Amino acid sequence: MNSFGKRFIFTTFGESHGKALGCIVDGVPAGLKIDETFIQAELDRRKPGQNVYATSRKEGDQVEILSGVFEGVSTGTPIAMVIFNTNQKSKDYSNIKDIFRPGHADFTYFHKYGIRDYRGGGRSSARETAARVAAGAIAKLMLKELGIRVESGVFAIDGIEAQNYDFDKAKESEIYALDPEIEEKQKEAILRAKNMHDSVGGIALIKITNAPVGLGEPIYYKLDAILADAMMSINAAKAVEIGEGMQASALKGSQNNDQISKEGFLSNKSGGILGGISNGDEISIKVYFKPTPSIFKKQKSIDIYENEVTCELKGRHDPCVAIRGSIVAEAMAALVIADMLLLNLGRQFSDLQKIYSR
Amino acid sequence: MNSFGKRFIFTTFGESHGKALGCIVDGVPAGLKIDETFIQAELDRRKPGQNVYATSRKEGDQVEILSGVFEGVSTGTPIAMVIFNTNQKSKDYSNIKDIFRPGHADFTYFHKYGIRDYRGGGRSSARETAARVAAGAIAKLMLKELGIRVESGVFAIDGIEAQNYDFDKAKESEIYALDPEIEEKQKEAILRAKNMHDSVGGIALIKITNAPVGLGEPIYYKLDAILADAMMSINAAKAVEIGEGMQASALKGSQNNDQISKEGFLSNKSGGILGGISNGDEISIKVYFKPTPSIFKKQKSIDIYENEVTCELKGRHDPCVAIRGSIVAEAMAALVIADMLLLNLGRQFSDLQKIYSR
Amino acid sequence: MNSFGKRFIFTTFGESHGKALGCIVDGVPAGLKIDETFIQAELDRRKPGQNVYATSRKEGDQVEILSGVFEGVSTGTPIAMVIFNTNQKSKDYSNIKDIFRPGHADFTYFHKYGIRDYRGGGRSSARETAARVAAGAIAKLMLKELGIRVESGVFAIDGIEAQNYDFDKAKESEIYALDPEIEEKQKEAILRAKNMHDSVGGIALIKITNAPVGLGEPIYYKLDAILADAMMSINAAKAVEIGEGMQASALKGSQNNDQISKEGFLSNKSGGILGGISNGDEISIKVYFKPTPSIFKKQKSIDIYENEVTCELKGRHDPCVAIRGSIVAEAMAALVIADMLLLNLGRQFSDLQKIYSR
Amino acid sequence: MNSFGKRFIFTTFGESHGKALGCIVDGVPAGLKIDETFIQAELDRRKPGQNVYATSRKEGDQVEILSGVFEGVSTGTPIAMVIFNTNQKSKDYSNIKDIFRPGHADFTYFHKYGIRDYRGGGRSSARETAARVAAGAIAKLMLKELGIRVESGVFAIDGIEAQNYDFDKAKESEIYALDPEIEEKQKEAILRAKNMHDSVGGIALIKITNAPVGLGEPIYYKLDAILADAMMSINAAKAVEIGEGMQASALKGSQNNDQISKEGFLSNKSGGILGGISNGDEISIKVYFKPTPSIFKKQKSIDIYENEVTCELKGRHDPCVAIRGSIVAEAMAALVIADMLLLNLGRQFSDLQKIYSR
Repeated sequence: MNSFGKRFIFTTFGESHGKALGCIVDGVPAGLKIDETFIQAELDRRKPGQNVYATSRKEGDQVEILSGVFEGVSTGTPIAMVIFNTNQKSKDYSNIKDIFRPGHADFTYFHKYGIRDYRGGGRSSARETAARVAAGAIAKLMLKELGIRVESGVFAIDGIEAQNYDFDKAKESEIYALDPEIEEKQKEAILRAKNMHDSVGGIALIKITNAPVGLGEPIYYKLDAILADAMMSINAAKAVEIGEGMQASALKGSQNNDQISKEGFLSNKSGGILGGISNGDEISIKVYFKPTPSIFKKQKSIDIYENEVTCELKGRHDPCVAIRGSIVAEAMAALVIADMLLLNLGRQFSDLQKIYSR
Repeated sequence: MNSFGKRFIFTTFGESHGKALGCIVDGVPAGLKIDETFIQAELDRRKPGQNVYATSRKEGDQVEILSGVFEGVSTGTPIAMVIFNTNQKSKDYSNIKDIFRPGHADFTYFHKYGIRDYRGGGRSSARETAARVAAGAIAKLMLKELGIRVESGVFAIDGIEAQNYDFDKAKESEIYALDPEIEEKQKEAILRAKNMHDSVGGIALIKITNAPVGLGEPIYYKLDAILADAMMSINAAKAVEIGEGMQASALKGSQNNDQISKEGFLSNKSGGILGGISNGDEISIKVYFKPTPSIFKKQKSIDIYENEVTCELKGRHDPCVAIRGSIVAEAMAALVIADMLLLNLGRQFSDLQKIYSR
Repeated sequence: MNSFGKRFIFTTFGESHGKALGCIVDGVPAGLKIDETFIQAELDRRKPGQNVYATSRKEGDQVEILSGVFEGVSTGTPIAMVIFNTNQKSKDYSNIKDIFRPGHADFTYFHKYGIRDYRGGGRSSARETAARVAAGAIAKLMLKELGIRVESGVFAIDGIEAQNYDFDKAKESEIYALDPEIEEKQKEAILRAKNMHDSVGGIALIKITNAPVGLGEPIYYKLDAILADAMMSINAAKAVEIGEGMQASALKGSQNNDQISKEGFLSNKSGGILGGISNGDEISIKVYFKPTPSIFKKQKSIDIYENEVTCELKGRHDPCVAIRGSIVAEAMAALVIADMLLLNLGRQFSDLQKIYSR
Repeated sequence: MNSFGKRFIFTTFGESHGKALGCIVDGVPAGLKIDETFIQAELDRRKPGQNVYATSRKEGDQVEILSGVFEGVSTGTPIAMVIFNTNQKSKDYSNIKDIFRPGHADFTYFHKYGIRDYRGGGRSSARETAARVAAGAIAKLMLKELGIRVESGVFAIDGIEAQNYDFDKAKESEIYALDPEIEEKQKEAILRAKNMHDSVGGIALIKITNAPVGLGEPIYYKLDAILADAMMSINAAKAVEIGEGMQASALKGSQNNDQISKEGFLSNKSGGILGGISNGDEISIKVYFKPTPSIFKKQKSIDIYENEVTCELKGRHDPCVAIRGSIVAEAMAALVIADMLLLNLGRQFSDLQKIYSR
């Protein structure tokens, strides 16, 4: 239940305040160059503590490869990666040790497992997503060699939406904003909420370019369905849409159908996926993140003994999870595509003939 | 890839114009009463040809149980169900035999598999969802015994949204409309589009009541992630949201957090799921359906030889897939919950002690 | 739990005295010629009632393809096959209705599921293996196109072992005997036991020729491990060995190692598998079947109320399950190889480049 | 492909000469006491370098838990364990760098992956089994609490078979010999082979006591089939049998059937499994190990350029892998039972009622 994928499979472990977190990536084809610098750089994009728009908690996030790579190349065996928690010293949790934080998974984990790991969210913490980004970096190395690009950016914050996209600009923005024109407004919204001890929601946009036609396995491992699964598995994600998504529900067929010419589709309302299979066009996904549940206002809650209490959090938290969430969503998208590329091998008998002809 | 679930697993087969379609439901606990009348009644809710708002194509959809039930009770062995296609006589496909229909999966299936099954969509046809509804009926029988209810209705059509919900009224509505006040407007929108040889999109709302706390497996089999997967696997679904979903992305943390009292959560913005695990509150899901791609207007397209052609469909089609889609979404939700109920067994060691104590 | 395989997946359903049994084969590459006559011919090899060495129970075993094949070719969608039970009329079970038959699965099914399907073994009956043979026939069609051959024969019956093998002769033998020299003795052993109301055990040998090097996924989907799983899943199988198998445990390394020359391995003690991966040499597997538990002698047993009773079976049963078991083992071997061929695609990054280069 | 199990799932990583090896154990119920001392003690039983009958290579095998345990108790989240390789310094491999060692997986890994990790076997090394033993220790902790016992011992070495079993004696024996009477002869056989630069095969016996009736999932996750899979996945295993196994193939039904009385089965030829499901009796499994392929005699081989060469290994190797193999087999058996215990939850609808009744 801590694994994702069918052929390019990753399994993560670790809690926010345990010794370490990490992952095993299984199914990486042999002979792929594994650039450790790239993996670390991807982790650094997700790393908090880099500016005022994120939590000031410092996480080193130094990744170490333990297996599966020999002389810089994948060997076909599982690639294990570990990130030791350098910041795990037990801070004082006494004020919330037994209290369920509204909007958090405390309540559900406690009731499911009968255990209260009060140290900063434990397994449910967004810290786990570092392992996804490490795994996603391996996927991206594979996609890059095949000419497939996965990019992300922040589309909206606190309801302030981008009017134009520039994924290259997003990479340089402190808040990964897709639209430099409204970036400042989005930043202000974050700081305003932060100052009010509050938090804001946001929307990430992910784009996949140059994926081949044919990815996705009908009926129950469709590309869009698995992308939705992947995106919704990210902390704080509450909605996912492909292409026009919601808007499509208010259109007529004649408006929403992408007509076709020799050069390809004449529009891309479908977001690059038809019948659960990639159509060769750009794949676009939006992920809607709720505001960070950790806020520093007083809230009504109960403790594990069912007493009513006032919950008042202290410390440091991301005022907007959507920012780092966009990097995680990008990693998840890359992992889904890598998996689908492998799964798709053998969809036609001629694939087998090509590989096994002697 | 034609299976769904990990413990309550169903596998479907069949094409729109093949001999039969059906499913195998594996993992049904032994000792469950299997009411065949109920299964057929569920299929009848999905069945087209019942009124002017759906396609006039008649499908008998008579289901037959082939295995797994003995003396009216599940035996723990796989339950196979089959629906023979009574309407499979080869109509004249010559006008679209080689043409890709815009908005359809024709293009992607052909490029993936190198095969063109031109008979009405083949495997990608919504006809496959009959098998899901049959499987979902078994799931619902199990949920019912445990006091869990799954309901659905049509929230919006052609952008006309319900202001109030009444799931009981929805059951009686010809278009499963949740809001009787606007039902008439929604019906008019459908007929207007139909008369224009066009189609409309819509939104289905699914509600799950009385699910126990603790369903959903972190991190990669979260309840909301698998619901998203399940919903997005339905034909024409383009977006999925849980609880407040998209709106949450424009809220502050202080607005979106569900505070807690002894009696339970003071609001339900989360849609009953926190950290990927059910919190005991009502689970609500919205599924956004694009308009039916089959329209009867002239559209630009290409054929399998890459010639540009004009695609002009004839025949009968649903002007709004969201209507039948809501029934399928309900079935998928029931299947996810059934699976999660089984998966959740053993999350605490005491579960094992309860079952294996002698 | 009623599915086998990871990429070439089959799922079976049906009980010995239910309406029908069958399977869904998922993952068959598109574009494979599906010869229905061949599938039926394979089923006929397994069919009982053909001579005095098998049960006289007649089973028509007429297979019907319901989906996944269009114009004689696989479409990449699931292939469902069904065999209706023509012989399901309720015979009189009153004498064993509540009695556990020694050596049978009655006892364990009843205690696991709390249900007693007394009609001739229900799901645990060897009748289920008809569905495996149908699925195996599809696998064999694929292997044949790739030049891979899977064959089987009966190696030993009642302890009387073949001294030489001839798989072609085995095909013509009524008891699929590998060694025509001792066939007569083996037949006599069967008839002798049959006349004594008893049964005999036996050993099947399966040979796979021309499998490419590289099949099998370390560490937990090794070719030999999955072959062992597949073989042990057959009714009455109690032991499996690969190559020299047991004998190897009494050899020295210098005797057991297969040395290597330019032309290949100088011996084949390994049975074609090293480190769980095929080495290009002939793969050989032995499956040890216990004697049919259904015998017509009086045996001590208990009933479902825990009363001690005398169990005295009546009717018709195979005096030697190993004979039909060899055909099932052959089917299972073909299914494993088909699965491994697909799984192996993508083990090297260059596979992806070959398939996705544009 | 580096994972095993469906509910109690472990995934291993690591090569013999990489930085580290380890595993993630997923699905461990929350609330189980995790005794680290016990885990280390289990690893110590497998550890080489302890006496003259094993390789003199020292492996510290110090295990460290990275996640999933809080205050000495499992939390329901994945338990990651790592063993750093302290002995990984690059010894001189120049003499075998490009040579395929007869009987080894070098040949097949190279042809499958196109990569030659010449450092001591890489992933195919028996060193990987340390991770299995660590995972198995967790499984054993769970089984112990439920009163289920898994034991192992060496039944035969070099063809010298035990006449009597004593699993307690086996625990104290340097070669885990089951029969103290013949232990000395078995030891002599090992040393004789070692002195001749050769190796010997052997047989391990595994016994599971007090497993409940009902474990094993028909038809394709049968208890015996998965035990066979698990055992055959161990390095050097070439055959597996359950209960009477091979001998059963030479018996009559009247000899092999276990008749039943009120007190239970009157014999245990079946080895505790009927129809793939545990019958409550003692489960017994034999695993046949080939002799260690690493011998120090000259052998014919080829190199990766297909030149014929003489392979002459140097260094230290186990003269008999069956000894350590028995400990690994015991761990695998425990892992299978743990998985089956979890999978079996929900086989009857009343299980759900017991757990979810409120």
